[in-house]
Amino acid sequence: MKVSLIKIGGNIIDNPSELEKFLTDFSKIEGHKILIHGGGKSATKMAESIGLVPQMIDGRRITDAAMLDVVVMIYAGQINKNIVAQLQAKNNNAIGFSGADGNLIQSTKRNHPTIDYGFVGDVKQVNTSLLATLLENNIVPVFCAITHDKNGQLLNTNADTIASELAIALSQDFDVTLTYCFEKQGVLSDSEDDDSVITEINAELYEKLKAEKVIHSGMIPKLDNCFNSLSKGVQAIKIGHHSMLQNSSILHTTITL
Amino acid sequence: MKVSLIKIGGNIIDNPSELEKFLTDFSKIEGHKILIHGGGKSATKMAESIGLVPQMIDGRRITDAAMLDVVVMIYAGQINKNIVAQLQAKNNNAIGFSGADGNLIQSTKRNHPTIDYGFVGDVKQVNTSLLATLLENNIVPVFCAITHDKNGQLLNTNADTIASELAIALSQDFDVTLTYCFEKQGVLSDSEDDDSVITEINAELYEKLKAEKVIHSGMIPKLDNCFNSLSKGVQAIKIGHHSMLQNSSILHTTITL
Repeated sequence: MKVSLIKIGGNIIDNPSELEKFLTDFSKIEGHKILIHGGGKSATKMAESIGLVPQMIDGRRITDAAMLDVVVMIYAGQINKNIVAQLQAKNNNAIGFSGADGNLIQSTKRNHPTIDYGFVGDVKQVNTSLLATLLENNIVPVFCAITHDKNGQLLNTNADTIASELAIALSQDFDVTLTYCFEKQGVLSDSEDDDSVITEINAELYEKLKAEKVIHSGMIPKLDNCFNSLSKGVQAIKIGHHSMLQNSSILHTTITL
Repeated sequence: MKVSLIKIGGNIIDNPSELEKFLTDFSKIEGHKILIHGGGKSATKMAESIGLVPQMIDGRRITDAAMLDVVVMIYAGQINKNIVAQLQAKNNNAIGFSGADGNLIQSTKRNHPTIDYGFVGDVKQVNTSLLATLLENNIVPVFCAITHDKNGQLLNTNADTIASELAIALSQDFDVTLTYCFEKQGVLSDSEDDDSVITEINAELYEKLKAEKVIHSGMIPKLDNCFNSLSKGVQAIKIGHHSMLQNSSILHTTITL
């Protein structure tokens, strides 16, 4: 059985008309599907408007208790429930989840020897049997990037990681494709030229592009994540603009081993 | 098959140690169960801290778009997900829901000839087949008081009403008991005397107590709701302190037709 996982980031979340277009494309995907969404800027805006001062340790922003409260209310509340309501209007039977719901994604509070990340969780296990039951009942799960430790503590978790961990876990029972949608058409060979999409990247080319500094900074952890998922059973990974979801002739990047 | 619906109000939500005690009692209830929670004061506090001015029309507070945003993030985000995480720690497989999730509770924006209530919804229908599937999979649904109109709009809805509408809808397939937990031991004959619990109120006694002004103000819509639910198939309704959930000798009020 096939399942399509689609991850969207902050750029789509922050733009209501883009989000609406994305959700229209997403709602037309046939078969089992799961949406994973990031946060966007509204958590930071909310934190500022209630006077929270970002907590920094060693130059690194940490998720303290007050900031966790904000991301839970924005990601799991405002963003997640509005997406669910919009998908319901498009006749997708969406249910919004944090990892705490149904113990779907259990994580462990990050315990780093020198850096205090605060209430940040690394995924430990995915409850695939409940997810399979939901998919079989034609539910469209919509995940925000909040997990829990099964001891009552909610934890902030990277949305790309949630997407890849869900994809890996579901690969045991399903043929999984994972698509990362963002504002560009794919991985670009020239960040100034939106048409310079690299249409296929395999492990060998990836090493070459990293060495040549064509691929750099934020794209490296994203692609490392992709190759990790592929090596653990995910069938196909694509990166690009959501318009490719309903129009396969739109340029995008395919990641292969 | 039996299902227990438990509704808690703001007084428990606003008191973390009381909430913890309640959730311990709730987690020990055997068989199918559903929790419905109200909001408490944190939505009002959040609205104040981001500088929202309560919108009043004809002396009545309305849920405008900004206030709806706040109640969605607080009720469906902060409160709901923290309750879910705490129940997971107590080995109850809780999933948090708004009415939009799974189209579980669809409502209609209130359309009053003279009063503008804003984004307030009156329950139209409950998706009992999905709820039954969830209960059969040993899921413990946890509802916040947010619904949707199936056209993409979230709506603020009274939590007592959600509890009674869920109870009525589930009565078609289950033996439903509905328990309203609050800070008192039940309906009191003397509001100054916490021990003056009226242990049983039937329709005849209710009319008498209203005529004598023993029951008045906020208790009237609550009890009207109860009698409505009983007349529509709910088997039993109790009102009292959550300590009765695990100790049946604790005084409480039972409502009967």
